[in-house]
Amino acid sequence: MDIYEKSLEAHKKWRGKISTEIKMPIDNSEDLSLAYTPGVAQACREIFKDPDSMKDYTWTQNTVAVITDGSAVLGLGNIGARAALPVMEGKCALFKRFAGVNAVPILIDTQDQEKIIETVKLIAPSFGGINLEDISAPRCVAIERRLIEELDIPVFHDDQHGTAIVVTAALINALRIVGKSADSITVTLSGTGAAGFSIVSMLREIGVKNIYAFNRSGILNEKNKDQYDLVKTELSEITNREQEDLTIAEAMKKSDCFIGVSGPRVINEQMVQSMKENAIVFAMANPEPEIGYEEAVKAGARIVGTGRSDYPNQINNVLAFPGLFKGALESGAKKITMEMKVNAARALADIVTDEERAQDIVIPSVFNFEVAERIASQIKKEAEKE
Amino acid sequence: MDIYEKSLEAHKKWRGKISTEIKMPIDNSEDLSLAYTPGVAQACREIFKDPDSMKDYTWTQNTVAVITDGSAVLGLGNIGARAALPVMEGKCALFKRFAGVNAVPILIDTQDQEKIIETVKLIAPSFGGINLEDISAPRCVAIERRLIEELDIPVFHDDQHGTAIVVTAALINALRIVGKSADSITVTLSGTGAAGFSIVSMLREIGVKNIYAFNRSGILNEKNKDQYDLVKTELSEITNREQEDLTIAEAMKKSDCFIGVSGPRVINEQMVQSMKENAIVFAMANPEPEIGYEEAVKAGARIVGTGRSDYPNQINNVLAFPGLFKGALESGAKKITMEMKVNAARALADIVTDEERAQDIVIPSVFNFEVAERIASQIKKEAEKE
Repeated sequence: MDIYEKSLEAHKKWRGKISTEIKMPIDNSEDLSLAYTPGVAQACREIFKDPDSMKDYTWTQNTVAVITDGSAVLGLGNIGARAALPVMEGKCALFKRFAGVNAVPILIDTQDQEKIIETVKLIAPSFGGINLEDISAPRCVAIERRLIEELDIPVFHDDQHGTAIVVTAALINALRIVGKSADSITVTLSGTGAAGFSIVSMLREIGVKNIYAFNRSGILNEKNKDQYDLVKTELSEITNREQEDLTIAEAMKKSDCFIGVSGPRVINEQMVQSMKENAIVFAMANPEPEIGYEEAVKAGARIVGTGRSDYPNQINNVLAFPGLFKGALESGAKKITMEMKVNAARALADIVTDEERAQDIVIPSVFNFEVAERIASQIKKEAEKE
Repeated sequence: MDIYEKSLEAHKKWRGKISTEIKMPIDNSEDLSLAYTPGVAQACREIFKDPDSMKDYTWTQNTVAVITDGSAVLGLGNIGARAALPVMEGKCALFKRFAGVNAVPILIDTQDQEKIIETVKLIAPSFGGINLEDISAPRCVAIERRLIEELDIPVFHDDQHGTAIVVTAALINALRIVGKSADSITVTLSGTGAAGFSIVSMLREIGVKNIYAFNRSGILNEKNKDQYDLVKTELSEITNREQEDLTIAEAMKKSDCFIGVSGPRVINEQMVQSMKENAIVFAMANPEPEIGYEEAVKAGARIVGTGRSDYPNQINNVLAFPGLFKGALESGAKKITMEMKVNAARALADIVTDEERAQDIVIPSVFNFEVAERIASQIKKEAEKE
């Protein structure tokens, strides 16, 4: 049985990866009168007087919604909201497993941008935070921006920023190993969707100046702006500083680092060979990366990471989102700011000690359960500053 | 400390009455690849091919949403969605405690009827059933009807039908004790909102023909239809067969049974004294009933029930909704029909054995954990018939 058959069997066995459970005892009449009527009325009255007291009396203080329209699910594409539920439940399970955060999968049965925004706004009081998931670009960026602006709880689109935080952390450690500074390097990025956009924004925050961004149509260049959507337009404004016309092979020659969030086999060994010395290759397309781990190593890359669990340096956003929301919820932060995200990346990088840091260890293991706590502490520190 | 202070303290201690927990293990890379990527893709593909297979691979098969707009919460009235959350969480805890059903509280931050309907429809695929809660009449009736019609999962407004099922069960047993038949009795109902409407509909199903319905403005009478909302209009068409003009005192004289779902002290001892022999009084306003238990007994009522846990015959809808949804979910029923509701009431009545049945035992105890299972079996039988 391959992994897909095994997984389907497990899904059939468990019929759901999460459950709701009771925290307060309900074993007799007195319990019932405390947890439910008539006693419960007092908590209602308190929240009616002061809506902020929801965090004292309800589960919102530790609960997020994992929300999707199913328009860009994993490698599966636009499979719709219903078919996305197994992924959302998985995500909810990860929230609990890695950070102790309650998470509820919410499917929205429309792909209309305005209706998604309105629906999320209308149900938002039910939760302490909103994790948007697997919504296609460029709508995901527009939806997230509007919700951040219009809601007073943290809203975070994991496909954008989760990956960005982890790849930024990996790059910070990789640069420590190769002895280069962020502002001296050139990066070739493949993939100009949600993740690519957030990666570029975050790399700029840690000082990276030279980035070439590619998609199937070639390099982003401001002169083609009229053909670009929101995301590509903004990306074209912050990449390719000289507005060069380069093929990806030409860009790779000038690059110290390749970052792939696109699809299988976008680059080859020759291109990696042509990169500057001590090349860094993060090829994160799943399940088949932009270039295989072994190939990239064989072609002379000094540091290689992928999204896969069967190779070293697994760039997996489960290293980011659980701790990030844990910290945001515990601090009562109303937004997850760029400072929080960048400092979460720095905190994640620093979990790898100087002694541990090596070619094959630029990022902590996914099953390092210290990670979420460390990131949460960092977020709480940031939240206090604000 | 009174019950309200004690309850508030418990709420402050627990900060939420429910949590989400993990069912599938996630302890190592293989677990992760089964519960999440890449393995999870297979369950997504199956649901994409056949949306009905959601019940095989996701938690929807055992999960309901408890949805409110906070417009008619307990005795508190229109306190808004946020302040209603402690009640919704309590309800969710009861779903789990009494029937093992997962339940998620969802607050909708609008009281616009059409927006509520649209929002529930858009998020409905996330759940296996919808329990509407504490939505004011007449909107609750209109909202429930539309959702039943337009969704293919069970939708049930507990404030209407939960109480109705339990009071119908209590009446069935009370009539057995006093030796009267349903079609021979006259009922005075106080309260023409959501619960009153469903009670009248259900009593008619078990054969009750003569019902007078009262609210603060007096008896419902078709000649006043132009002043009535949707609920009162329909109620006026199925009550007061002769379109009499009676005061509640006059109606009580003609009645074998009083049912109160209104407010405190609507009837008095004199009225109960004036009722027909072997009078049945179900005074369910909470926390203060239409007439106190002791007063009603003193005035000669043969069988008295209230909503309170400190007196016999507690009419509490926790006896109905957990088993009802458990049965509906397990049978895959797409609707909860009138037949299911009436037969749930009959099943509930029959849990009290001939030996047990007595003046003070017309309904099982709230903490009889057999109840939900028995009702669920009944619902499954009904579902198979259809």
